[in-house]
Amino acid sequence: MSFSPLVERLMESLRVLPGVGPKTAQRMAMHLLERDRDGGRRLAAVLEQAIDQVGYCRRCRTLTEEEVCALCTSARRDDSLLCVVESPADQLAIEEAGGYRGRYFVLHGHLSPLDGIGPEDIGLDQLEARIAEGGISEVILATNPTVEGEATAHYIAAQLSPHGVTLSRLAYGVPMGGELEYVDGGTLSRAFNGRLPFRGD
Amino acid sequence: MSFSPLVERLMESLRVLPGVGPKTAQRMAMHLLERDRDGGRRLAAVLEQAIDQVGYCRRCRTLTEEEVCALCTSARRDDSLLCVVESPADQLAIEEAGGYRGRYFVLHGHLSPLDGIGPEDIGLDQLEARIAEGGISEVILATNPTVEGEATAHYIAAQLSPHGVTLSRLAYGVPMGGELEYVDGGTLSRAFNGRLPFRGD
Ligand SMILES: [Zn+2]
Ligand SMILES: [Zn+2]
Repeated sequence: MSFSPLVERLMESLRVLPGVGPKTAQRMAMHLLERDRDGGRRLAAVLEQAIDQVGYCRRCRTLTEEEVCALCTSARRDDSLLCVVESPADQLAIEEAGGYRGRYFVLHGHLSPLDGIGPEDIGLDQLEARIAEGGISEVILATNPTVEGEATAHYIAAQLSPHGVTLSRLAYGVPMGGELEYVDGGTLSRAFNGRLPFRGD
Repeated sequence: MSFSPLVERLMESLRVLPGVGPKTAQRMAMHLLERDRDGGRRLAAVLEQAIDQVGYCRRCRTLTEEEVCALCTSARRDDSLLCVVESPADQLAIEEAGGYRGRYFVLHGHLSPLDGIGPEDIGLDQLEARIAEGGISEVILATNPTVEGEATAHYIAAQLSPHGVTLSRLAYGVPMGGELEYVDGGTLSRAFNGRLPFRGD
């Protein structure tokens, strides 16, 4: 015996969530069906809507349901600074740390030749076009302090160096091998202030 | 700054899931939007369908999208035994332990006067009607070995005693204060075999 086919399918579907194994999926399915159907219905509707409507900002590629995101539209940001991050979560972590007032560019990943992820997949053609527009004096390469993040930063530095912008990288206040998203705000903030000139060689 | 309104709403909606705090909700939302939109779309569809279609079996009250569940329909179960459990998860745990071949009745909770949960809310009128039909010789009160589960078992025993059925309760192989759902199959199976006569006073 198991649960009914539809309940089993619900448990199976919940396992797309990160960190959710069979036992947790069962607990979640039972909670939704036994105790919070309204919440479950709302989750289903919002999830469907988000997947349909949330795309990439045309300018910075962060996740947004608008053509251009609120941060790109804001008149109160410094147009001469551009911070390149791997993910929207990294962007949010930097914003929450405070102190940075420039713009962003979101890669949604890093270069990974073995997985077939090349420069266009992470928007580097679009990034270069944006630098070519002019007006940006410094690009902060805030990719993760991991092997792949470093390699991606070096690739971008080589690509952008003909454009004569200053390149910098976060100071190593951030722990090696870690992910920006999980760094506390104080450390991130200090790393921003202590950012170093970056040579892409 | 935060994520876009729709992404924020998605994170908020994910928090209906048990054990999901703000950080986990963010990780889940990012995973679905950045890496598994197909899985997310499937989850939304199945969740909506399950909430719309899964109700209680007319006979045993377990969760099912059918009028009467597969176990109630099965010709291979012993009609003379009825096992009363608090939840579909408890029912599944007993089935997975193996050995029991009778029918079930699912309360979806226990008596809890302070929360306004009385006998009708856990289907006790329906349970008594089923016993009154005749054909059941023994009712196994497999409510959780908690204070509320014990109180509910005593209430049911008092209610059913005029009907002259044998009442039993799982042997205390199950740990006091625990929940059946999390008991290993071997312990559950032994507790079933060692079940004791139950007096509801
Ligand atoms: Zn933008
Ligand atoms: Zn049934």
